[in-house]
Amino acid sequence: MEAFSDGVIAILITVMVLELPKPHGVTWSALHDSLPVLLAYVLSFVYLGIYWNNHHHMLQATHRVSGGILWANLHLLFWLSLVPFTTSWLGENRLATVPAAAYGIDLLAAAVAYYLLERLIIRDQGEHSVLAAAVGRDLKGKASPVLYVTGIGLAFVTPVLAVAVYVVVALIWLVPDRRVERTVTAAGS
Amino acid sequence: MEAFSDGVIAILITVMVLELPKPHGVTWSALHDSLPVLLAYVLSFVYLGIYWNNHHHMLQATHRVSGGILWANLHLLFWLSLVPFTTSWLGENRLATVPAAAYGIDLLAAAVAYYLLERLIIRDQGEHSVLAAAVGRDLKGKASPVLYVTGIGLAFVTPVLAVAVYVVVALIWLVPDRRVERTVTAAGS
Amino acid sequence: MEAFSDGVIAILITVMVLELPKPHGVTWSALHDSLPVLLAYVLSFVYLGIYWNNHHHMLQATHRVSGGILWANLHLLFWLSLVPFTTSWLGENRLATVPAAAYGIDLLAAAVAYYLLERLIIRDQGEHSVLAAAVGRDLKGKASPVLYVTGIGLAFVTPVLAVAVYVVVALIWLVPDRRVERTVTAAGS
Amino acid sequence: MEAFSDGVIAILITVMVLELPKPHGVTWSALHDSLPVLLAYVLSFVYLGIYWNNHHHMLQATHRVSGGILWANLHLLFWLSLVPFTTSWLGENRLATVPAAAYGIDLLAAAVAYYLLERLIIRDQGEHSVLAAAVGRDLKGKASPVLYVTGIGLAFVTPVLAVAVYVVVALIWLVPDRRVERTVTAAGS
Repeated sequence: MEAFSDGVIAILITVMVLELPKPHGVTWSALHDSLPVLLAYVLSFVYLGIYWNNHHHMLQATHRVSGGILWANLHLLFWLSLVPFTTSWLGENRLATVPAAAYGIDLLAAAVAYYLLERLIIRDQGEHSVLAAAVGRDLKGKASPVLYVTGIGLAFVTPVLAVAVYVVVALIWLVPDRRVERTVTAAGS
Repeated sequence: MEAFSDGVIAILITVMVLELPKPHGVTWSALHDSLPVLLAYVLSFVYLGIYWNNHHHMLQATHRVSGGILWANLHLLFWLSLVPFTTSWLGENRLATVPAAAYGIDLLAAAVAYYLLERLIIRDQGEHSVLAAAVGRDLKGKASPVLYVTGIGLAFVTPVLAVAVYVVVALIWLVPDRRVERTVTAAGS
Repeated sequence: MEAFSDGVIAILITVMVLELPKPHGVTWSALHDSLPVLLAYVLSFVYLGIYWNNHHHMLQATHRVSGGILWANLHLLFWLSLVPFTTSWLGENRLATVPAAAYGIDLLAAAVAYYLLERLIIRDQGEHSVLAAAVGRDLKGKASPVLYVTGIGLAFVTPVLAVAVYVVVALIWLVPDRRVERTVTAAGS
Repeated sequence: MEAFSDGVIAILITVMVLELPKPHGVTWSALHDSLPVLLAYVLSFVYLGIYWNNHHHMLQATHRVSGGILWANLHLLFWLSLVPFTTSWLGENRLATVPAAAYGIDLLAAAVAYYLLERLIIRDQGEHSVLAAAVGRDLKGKASPVLYVTGIGLAFVTPVLAVAVYVVVALIWLVPDRRVERTVTAAGS
């Protein structure tokens, strides 16, 4: 399951580049017109990188895979698979309301799917498992959905603020989930 | 062979998103126009998830790979590889007869290919193998083609019913093949 | 190197479906118009399947990878990576001369690249290696280029005959390289 | 991390072919018109092959992966992921100034990202590690950015010379990084 998920995220992070529209013309200003698309690409690249990173650590702490976990995982991959779609919609319509909200809804759905997967794995392994200890109170996991909902709301007022919120959440997560990493290492030694 | 097949299905499940046409405009109604395509995408995502899941379990119970099995596997991957093609045809022509029938024909061909692969592996391993025991009478495997044929027929009367049948088959399979999982675990312990 | 090559071929075999143009309309005749493209897709799918199969067996008999072998392998992957390109050119121009010849030239280049890779590996392992014994006189490997050249020539007379030759070569190879499989198994036991 | 990176590079090297525009017409001159795109494709294929090769050797000499290394690696993959984008822009605008400069800037950024990753790994492993010994003074790694900057500058004078410089750097690197290969082998024996 880990190899399959890694594969899907690797493909998603890569095929996004196929959605980048080619600049019209051969001037810097042609490239400048592509800038919003490129920036949306960078943001989504970072988000998929964060998911790959944390997901990878979580699955390393998972030893038994039930049918429910498999489908919770595919559910997460489903929302991640829509990222290239929402990214190109957002990028090609410079900070329009609905694409900015749709982008946030996809991020929110992925965050919820990640949370469900995490809970299922912990329930399966018991509350005293490595993963449960590693995740702890999971402040970041609980704050992110609240921030996404804020961002989605802001999209209807000032879309640029919505995107700013998404950037902030990405920055919060950019620090990889060292808790799991550390606890797994500790449990293994 | 398992890694290669997992890779192909991971790629298929992902490249489908590239076939999603971008909404024309930045309103919710633009996204609403994309709804049939998105729903077709969800259905195909679930189908490829089911195939990945069951195929993965089946190959874990397969220890010897003959030339025949290799080609039966590629035959299955061929029909699965057409899923993005039939999906986008179905999604972009809201419940038209021929695309709905073509979608069902592809599902039928994939189901037959899966059945052939299963038989080849069981023949190779002997009727008393783990897989043979796990598959058992294979009610789902036998009912699916009948339902697909029904769906293909219904496409010529009321296409929406055809799609409803495909959704029902997906729901039947959504429960992962716990028989194999359970029997393999039992045999391994 | 094996995982990377398997990955590249898995991706190639899959992204070809993205090159399939969507049928114009929702009738069987619209699908019928797509038939040449679909048939070209089937032929290329079989060719990539053959390469995956034989390449996979060859690398399993390869234990040491030098820089030269790495680049000979990438050289082979380069010609295989052009298959989706030549396939869609051939399929969309029903049996035109130049696309039919270009398709054959790509197959010829891939065959030569495969032969070079095989020779490099055998030279590296010694003439008494498992692979050298398995390949033997390599009749198929020597006949294929001759047939491809014949096909390329025929493209300028009757393109349909060129494609017929490519189909024949595919059929010759469809039998997986059991020699390697058998010899490797024998050497392992 | 190695499997994920290999996967991303395998996908990049492959999806580039999807960016190749289909020849308009069925004559050799139609293919001739595609020649600049095809040559840009060859150059980028070689570059991605070089990165895969050296990156693969570097990660084999890396035993511990910190959060910083993970993100330095994703940073490298980000610049590599833009290669299909800059390649098609360069190829479709026969030697125009800005695309030729943009192509070089992407190569430069990837080279810097590779250097940062290498330094991070060496810092993590200590100056007496296998990798530090293998990389040595890293003449090629230090010369490449200088050459890229030269190429970017030349793009504003004679774009064809810029591309010539990029070809020269590729040729310099085409010899795989045998130092690492050799030192790793020596350390392992």
